[in-house]
Amino acid sequence: MENEIEQTLVAEISPEELLALVKAKDRNGLLDVFEKVPTIDIAEAANDFEPSDLIAIFRLVKTEYTAEFFDGLSQDTKENLIKAMTDKELVAVINSQAADDIADAVSEMPANLASRVLRAADKEMRSDINTLLNYKEGTAGALMTTEYLEFVSTLTVDKAISEIRAKGKDAETIYTIFVRNRSRHFVGTVNLDDLIFAKADETLEDIMNIDVAYCFTSTDQEEVAQMFRRYDLNAMAVLNEDRCLIGVITVDDAVDVITEEAQEDLALATHMSPLTKTYDETTPWDTAKKSFPWLIALLVLGTFTTMILNRLENQKIFASLGILIAFVPALMDTGGNAGGQTTGLMIRSLALDEFEPKDVLRVLWKELRGAAIVAAIVGSFAFLWITVEQYTGIVSLGKINGTDFSAMNIWNGNCWNWEFGSHALLFSGVVALTMFCAIFVSKIVGTLLPMGAAAIKKDPALLSQPMLTTIMDALTLVIYFGIACAFFPAYA
Amino acid sequence: MENEIEQTLVAEISPEELLALVKAKDRNGLLDVFEKVPTIDIAEAANDFEPSDLIAIFRLVKTEYTAEFFDGLSQDTKENLIKAMTDKELVAVINSQAADDIADAVSEMPANLASRVLRAADKEMRSDINTLLNYKEGTAGALMTTEYLEFVSTLTVDKAISEIRAKGKDAETIYTIFVRNRSRHFVGTVNLDDLIFAKADETLEDIMNIDVAYCFTSTDQEEVAQMFRRYDLNAMAVLNEDRCLIGVITVDDAVDVITEEAQEDLALATHMSPLTKTYDETTPWDTAKKSFPWLIALLVLGTFTTMILNRLENQKIFASLGILIAFVPALMDTGGNAGGQTTGLMIRSLALDEFEPKDVLRVLWKELRGAAIVAAIVGSFAFLWITVEQYTGIVSLGKINGTDFSAMNIWNGNCWNWEFGSHALLFSGVVALTMFCAIFVSKIVGTLLPMGAAAIKKDPALLSQPMLTTIMDALTLVIYFGIACAFFPAYA
Repeated sequence: MENEIEQTLVAEISPEELLALVKAKDRNGLLDVFEKVPTIDIAEAANDFEPSDLIAIFRLVKTEYTAEFFDGLSQDTKENLIKAMTDKELVAVINSQAADDIADAVSEMPANLASRVLRAADKEMRSDINTLLNYKEGTAGALMTTEYLEFVSTLTVDKAISEIRAKGKDAETIYTIFVRNRSRHFVGTVNLDDLIFAKADETLEDIMNIDVAYCFTSTDQEEVAQMFRRYDLNAMAVLNEDRCLIGVITVDDAVDVITEEAQEDLALATHMSPLTKTYDETTPWDTAKKSFPWLIALLVLGTFTTMILNRLENQKIFASLGILIAFVPALMDTGGNAGGQTTGLMIRSLALDEFEPKDVLRVLWKELRGAAIVAAIVGSFAFLWITVEQYTGIVSLGKINGTDFSAMNIWNGNCWNWEFGSHALLFSGVVALTMFCAIFVSKIVGTLLPMGAAAIKKDPALLSQPMLTTIMDALTLVIYFGIACAFFPAYA
Repeated sequence: MENEIEQTLVAEISPEELLALVKAKDRNGLLDVFEKVPTIDIAEAANDFEPSDLIAIFRLVKTEYTAEFFDGLSQDTKENLIKAMTDKELVAVINSQAADDIADAVSEMPANLASRVLRAADKEMRSDINTLLNYKEGTAGALMTTEYLEFVSTLTVDKAISEIRAKGKDAETIYTIFVRNRSRHFVGTVNLDDLIFAKADETLEDIMNIDVAYCFTSTDQEEVAQMFRRYDLNAMAVLNEDRCLIGVITVDDAVDVITEEAQEDLALATHMSPLTKTYDETTPWDTAKKSFPWLIALLVLGTFTTMILNRLENQKIFASLGILIAFVPALMDTGGNAGGQTTGLMIRSLALDEFEPKDVLRVLWKELRGAAIVAAIVGSFAFLWITVEQYTGIVSLGKINGTDFSAMNIWNGNCWNWEFGSHALLFSGVVALTMFCAIFVSKIVGTLLPMGAAAIKKDPALLSQPMLTTIMDALTLVIYFGIACAFFPAYA
């Protein structure tokens, strides 16, 4: 039932059905498909077609569909298509596109294809593409479109509406109208609905919003996306240093940024470089390239832990109390996980602008209290759990100084004596206290690393987790050794 | 410079400045603030005010601002305010709100406050709130608003425009007009810009889009958000089982869902339950509650590893080759990380609908090839690196069968002999081969766990990572032991 409903959400077309229509040169059938099926879904179905079949689609359907169709194709397909098209076909396709979409595609193309596209673009389009290509990826400048409506603030409502009718077709959005003053500075926006409900002789100045968020070409795209989210924007003004409007960003691009940034954070949280293509566009080698450098880096960072453990295991206490080794992974995991939770929380809150690096003391004080609660609860639980593990024989103390505790457990009934009890409880104490310290320290380190990264303007998601693991693995081992020696001085 | 620009992006107000205006009952000053500063920022500044000061704000400013102001307050502040307001004040505030915002707030309130709000709501509002409260959280029904514009498909363009002027003020969006046929079934949408550019005597049927995505009240909110992203929607129709329109979802709500779902995935990737409040609204105990149950669960799951390691460390080979223990954390980390990367990738692609559980064989085949590449590269690197570690004395083989290798390294110059070389290279081989196997297996398990979770309709982000770690820690130990015994039969 659920599947049935899902399948009817939008009309669909399979690659085979689409190819059949193209091969049959069925213009009416194709137009029907383009009317009923979302264009991006058609583009996806056509992604693996031969360039000649794709060109046939461009010849058969109306130009009003081809712009979105081309934009929906994968980068590889776009490039193959551009190679195969005649100059005339290319001119028609390129100039029907939005400048920001073409600029995005061109920025990833080999130079010979890029220059072919630029030659095909008309003068205005070429200048727009070149402007957009000059902004650094990840900034508002690279995200904006240059097709928008800007009116002077003294314009009347009825004049503005007729201007929109005349010029609005080329704009990316007409729902937000951007307003400048006589000296060309951006002063506010008018929503189309306010314009529709206004009196004909009011001026834009009378009805415009002045409490609007805007950004500069250099503003980070993540910050732009956050403002869209916070202020429920439909479109945002991008200004140059003179505070003049030079582009706008629309909500659909902000949605893409939010999705992209979230994927980046998730990839980094799993120690991987983010993929920039869709799953079907990536080869196993693409994925491997994002994966193995991290594993090698983590392996090298882990050398520190290996070195410490290699030194400690030769200490007398590890030889006397073999059971100590069995809990090393559990302690390291708990320490790493506890701090990782806090690091994740910091990354989230920094991304959402809930606090800034300068708030570090306030945040640290809150996290200290949280860390104490978590450390106390998990430490207490660990004490009970590890005692249970020993009494039930899940783990055994082994032979200590000639006494063999291996077969002592509740099943054999021979564990109710002072010698076993004192060793078992002391050992549970060692693990529990180490866990308490490791969780507490890890949550502090997990707070400070991302805050520190943000303070020096680095992405907190990038290095905080690996550094936390490395630091905590080494610290946990040293704490464990110290506490074990203090609790069992006779074997140290 | 950067800071200066950031601070001028929108006008700001501090809690102190706002409170001064309220205490002075400076109506004009307040109105000026509400005009220049985004309302949500004012609400945030007022979050810690006494209820009496908040009530003063509602009395002083125009009702057109109070709806958004109330919506921007935190849940706690809203509840305190409702307790402190007179019935008359409450009626004014509640009925100026959007029904979906009030329903969201009511769903989290204690029963006595919720019923006070429902009594204050007028008849229509109360019915809307009750409708919305009946949908399960996380579905389109709970997300939608009941205030929208719906016209019959035979309406002419000029009639539609005058209807919009008459009724549009109450709708959440007028940029998308929803169209039904004579039997009240939803048939398509008209964008406001198409309406504006159309001829006055055309009907909505002539200009409407029929290739539009819609959803049902039971559709998962994540799927709704994905459709907004994919189809660049401004608003989406929510239908009941008879395919009649009963609500719409606007893009700002979809943006919130995307952000919320991304935070959920990120929290789960760091083994923590997602926080539903902002950082400043949470107490240390709130955070601790989301954190410690996971740590305890992971600790209990880790018992399995502890048990295996406790058994293995008493095997002869671990006693003969002490160095084996030193690499246990590095091997477990690499195994866990390698699979974690793949699990993260699967979670991302499943969330973006890039593939479905039924594509498991195709996906598995691709991941198998990727896993082989990564395992071969990292395994080869590990072989070289661990050989270097031994020759440089970062780790030492210790005493084996009476021979003391501890002081053999390149610094002492006594490592260039067959006995050290053969032991060192064989040991590097053990670790490298274990790493190869652990990475390969981990990437397969990391593919299958989230695909399996999705196949049985569970959230793949919830349990895949902890289960992967548990399975891989245990498997890695067993593989390590087996390979060590095969490579060093003399000590096994």
